[in-house]
Amino acid sequence: MRAGRWRSPTTTSRSRPDDGAVTHSKSRSPRAAETREVILTAAERLFAEQGVFAVSNRQVSEAAGQGNNTAVGYHFGTKEDLVRAIVVKHARGIERIRRDLLESDANDDSDRDDLRTWITLLVRPSTDYLAQLGRPTWYARFAAQVITDPVLRPIVYEEALASASLRRIVAGLDARKPDLPADVRSSRGAMARNLMTHFVAETERDIADSRADPVEEWNRCGTDLIDAIVGLWQAPCTR
Amino acid sequence: MRAGRWRSPTTTSRSRPDDGAVTHSKSRSPRAAETREVILTAAERLFAEQGVFAVSNRQVSEAAGQGNNTAVGYHFGTKEDLVRAIVVKHARGIERIRRDLLESDANDDSDRDDLRTWITLLVRPSTDYLAQLGRPTWYARFAAQVITDPVLRPIVYEEALASASLRRIVAGLDARKPDLPADVRSSRGAMARNLMTHFVAETERDIADSRADPVEEWNRCGTDLIDAIVGLWQAPCTR
Repeated sequence: MRAGRWRSPTTTSRSRPDDGAVTHSKSRSPRAAETREVILTAAERLFAEQGVFAVSNRQVSEAAGQGNNTAVGYHFGTKEDLVRAIVVKHARGIERIRRDLLESDANDDSDRDDLRTWITLLVRPSTDYLAQLGRPTWYARFAAQVITDPVLRPIVYEEALASASLRRIVAGLDARKPDLPADVRSSRGAMARNLMTHFVAETERDIADSRADPVEEWNRCGTDLIDAIVGLWQAPCTR
Repeated sequence: MRAGRWRSPTTTSRSRPDDGAVTHSKSRSPRAAETREVILTAAERLFAEQGVFAVSNRQVSEAAGQGNNTAVGYHFGTKEDLVRAIVVKHARGIERIRRDLLESDANDDSDRDDLRTWITLLVRPSTDYLAQLGRPTWYARFAAQVITDPVLRPIVYEEALASASLRRIVAGLDARKPDLPADVRSSRGAMARNLMTHFVAETERDIADSRADPVEEWNRCGTDLIDAIVGLWQAPCTR
């Protein structure tokens, strides 16, 4: 049964010693660490271009140049564990940028009452991170699939909830929502999340298909998202 | 190779005689038509709840109560053909509502200059259609997965492009976009699409998990989307 491959009912991925990039260097050789990284990159590209579920662990192993077709299983476990390892890797990169932005911005208290400042703190870490990765990137298209899948979805949310800086930004934003019914506020929060996931994924596809300068495009994507989310956040409610 | 199951390189689904609900009644018995419908419903539910790719054609056949585990293959062909049949079925239902709304609205020419009228025509056909289906629905969660998948994505866009009424609404909206650079206009169109797909899918999940009245919830979802899209459409551009 295919669905079974996607769940690990007896162990949680979180408890696996080889789950994260931080722990593997203690428990694995440098060569194994390198192999893991090659597999992560191959998987991300195949998942973005062909679909997370359409691509088998065997295809990932082959694309990563591993003679042994079970390399993904050996280094990561199930496909769900592999998906989580990709999410964790990028979540850390985004978290670093978010913390830096929050701290550099903390010197300028005058802006803290401004809605746009908080929405900027929400959006820029992702688009700045993708710009830093250089061309090409695959993470945004991969993440959009994971978030839309009913079984994999929680992986991304667990990582997001683990971020103290993101919680601080969401609280800052919450305090600046206009005077609207609670469920309208919550709808608009969900819409901002939807845009950040799916507009970013579409932008990544456009960049991959074009010859445009990715740094400029990501910067523009961030500005367009901030403008639009400020607009939808402040829109009058008619119900 | 799993990916291969998802493509039909020699025949296009469009040319299959058993592709659409309209043609099968000519070429198949009433009992076959009934079986097709049972399979479509089972597939949609499993895809929404467990993931389009995680669920095999065999699991769909079993859930549809078909003794023969190859029933999906017999009645639809590949999984891609099955996905297309589900999309076509619902696209027709949405199209009927959209045409009715456009025509009833045509009597009131005074509103045709109003941006909100066009955004309402864009949003309401989907939310009204889901409200009409009654509880539970699975189509919105299914469609969000299909649109986010790199290989299946074109199926939904082909159906959308085939709709004359949708083209009319998009043209009406285009003529009412504020004075912004062409690429900002196009970004905002993409964002409106993103929200219509993914906020609707999240609402469907919330409704499935709650005891709320689905008709009220879909109505509210439509109003929230219209308010938010009007806001993002008109937001000032800072770049």
